[in-house]
Amino acid sequence: MIQSKGYAAQSADTNLAAWEFQRRDITENDMLIDILFCGVCHSDLHSIKNDWFAGVFPMVPGHEIVGRVTAVGSNVTKFKADDIVGVGVMVDACLECENCRSHHEQFCPEGVQTYNNIGKDNLPVYGGYSNNIVVREEFVLKVSKKLPLAAVAPLLCAGITTYSPLRNWKVGKGHKLAVVGLGGLGHMAVKFGIAFGAEVTVLSTSESKRNDAKALGVHNFVVTKDEEQLKDVKGSFDFILDTVSAKHDINLYLSLLRTSGVHICVGIPLESLSVAPFSLVAGNKALAGSGAGGLAQTQEMLDFCAENNIVSDVELIDIKDIHHAFERMKKGDVRYRFVIDMATINK
Amino acid sequence: MIQSKGYAAQSADTNLAAWEFQRRDITENDMLIDILFCGVCHSDLHSIKNDWFAGVFPMVPGHEIVGRVTAVGSNVTKFKADDIVGVGVMVDACLECENCRSHHEQFCPEGVQTYNNIGKDNLPVYGGYSNNIVVREEFVLKVSKKLPLAAVAPLLCAGITTYSPLRNWKVGKGHKLAVVGLGGLGHMAVKFGIAFGAEVTVLSTSESKRNDAKALGVHNFVVTKDEEQLKDVKGSFDFILDTVSAKHDINLYLSLLRTSGVHICVGIPLESLSVAPFSLVAGNKALAGSGAGGLAQTQEMLDFCAENNIVSDVELIDIKDIHHAFERMKKGDVRYRFVIDMATINK
Repeated sequence: MIQSKGYAAQSADTNLAAWEFQRRDITENDMLIDILFCGVCHSDLHSIKNDWFAGVFPMVPGHEIVGRVTAVGSNVTKFKADDIVGVGVMVDACLECENCRSHHEQFCPEGVQTYNNIGKDNLPVYGGYSNNIVVREEFVLKVSKKLPLAAVAPLLCAGITTYSPLRNWKVGKGHKLAVVGLGGLGHMAVKFGIAFGAEVTVLSTSESKRNDAKALGVHNFVVTKDEEQLKDVKGSFDFILDTVSAKHDINLYLSLLRTSGVHICVGIPLESLSVAPFSLVAGNKALAGSGAGGLAQTQEMLDFCAENNIVSDVELIDIKDIHHAFERMKKGDVRYRFVIDMATINK
Repeated sequence: MIQSKGYAAQSADTNLAAWEFQRRDITENDMLIDILFCGVCHSDLHSIKNDWFAGVFPMVPGHEIVGRVTAVGSNVTKFKADDIVGVGVMVDACLECENCRSHHEQFCPEGVQTYNNIGKDNLPVYGGYSNNIVVREEFVLKVSKKLPLAAVAPLLCAGITTYSPLRNWKVGKGHKLAVVGLGGLGHMAVKFGIAFGAEVTVLSTSESKRNDAKALGVHNFVVTKDEEQLKDVKGSFDFILDTVSAKHDINLYLSLLRTSGVHICVGIPLESLSVAPFSLVAGNKALAGSGAGGLAQTQEMLDFCAENNIVSDVELIDIKDIHHAFERMKKGDVRYRFVIDMATINK
């Protein structure tokens, strides 16, 4: 077995704390990766608090992983030691079912999430808040050394989660795209929307993020609590990418779509959405959801980012400051993603 | 003014009864049409009962109209006397706004519905439960004399309302389409789905419609209250066309969609739909709405029906039996659309 050092929650009632544990030895299809950086995703906090469902404890969260390969199994062909790689939200799947064959491995019924899940060997899997990880080759992505690696980490979840729906719905030139929620996901949606040629508006509940949004290059900023500003954008957007996981009024946003417009949810509120049928029928509108992205599309996204010099805006933290980071994240006080510098785990 | 005889509700509390009224003289752009047949749509009943909003009374319902041209204004070029024509859910629009320019006249903010609305001359408009109607040329559709005209009438609402989303979402060969609700709209969705090459399943809450569905040529029939039958179709449909306007569990249907599947609502329940975010996000699914169809697409649908010998299955009634027909329609006891034989208005 391989010795690992990480930060784990021992139950939904405890805080994360340093924990030593073991990972499986690498099989012929596995790779051992020394983790350099791991992004802090809001779902890490949801998971350790059992917000969605009862978790697998002890739980080492983290699914925005960038690291360096230190060993590869005998069947591994795509990677070698010293390669820089990424691991996202999943570490295994059957690779044979309809979802896997259509490059939606993230929806494989036998898929294994990066943490808070049981692997195919019936042992719990542990995520990226740790010094190393063992992952099957197919679930490892190539990362260009051209980019600042700490700022690449959030691409593995926040990046692909926003890139995927924008690509799948073919958002681009000539489209008006609105982004709701300017956080870890939202700021990536803005960057991709601009890169794809769309006219990008940030919809916010307050004025406070106007300058931040402008700094990201958005074309327009609208405070949705201001009736006058709202009136100007009624029926105007082709797409809305909604990253908000707090309760919010979907019908309000549907009214901002033009005919045949699509509102895409990537945030997951705990409560059900209440949708007035007229909001959809009047104007042939759609409310869509999108979850992460498949392996091929994640690699495509990483390559696109390398070519177009796109990374996340990050704030690097010491792993010992994770609780403070969680507190700030809950308040939306981060521009735009905390990333753990994993060198700090050995300090 | 032109003298008309129709059936009107004088208020939301009264039944329909014979009523004589006047329509505007035809202007240079108008046509006078003698109505031969008018379909009985569930929204006729919703409208006269103020189910959705307070209506314009007296109200002559009816927006599935087939008739014969008896006079045309001096500017009318597409039609001449004796032509067989159709009129659907709208009789006017600005023809200049973004919706009109993109052939979605049904969503024009200045659009005029066929009844329960005020026309551009500031006078109420009256629908097709009457012996004649005056309509602006652009809102009149050509109807082939090849088809049985009584059975064409429902195409003007039930037909286009189901044809439009199936076309817009490009439903066809290789797709599995489920239709929810085998009524006036549902049976047209089945016919179009089959004509477009899809594999069509009817989802029903009871066994009672299995033989009717099979008679329409559906490939599969599933009783959604039977867990065993339901299990077989979990995650299997590319599209679900949902014609139900009673309250129903959308999340159940979303679970029957495969990855990237789309659930399209054309029925309009009075209550908001409750949608679990996971139902959409897990599987990149979409909940869409669709309302009627534009003029060009309605003509395309009528031409497609003439070429492919598609009409509605109808039960012809005397206008004096309209209340009995409403009662039966409320119970779903019609295969599949009542159509008023307008010759009976003079009996």
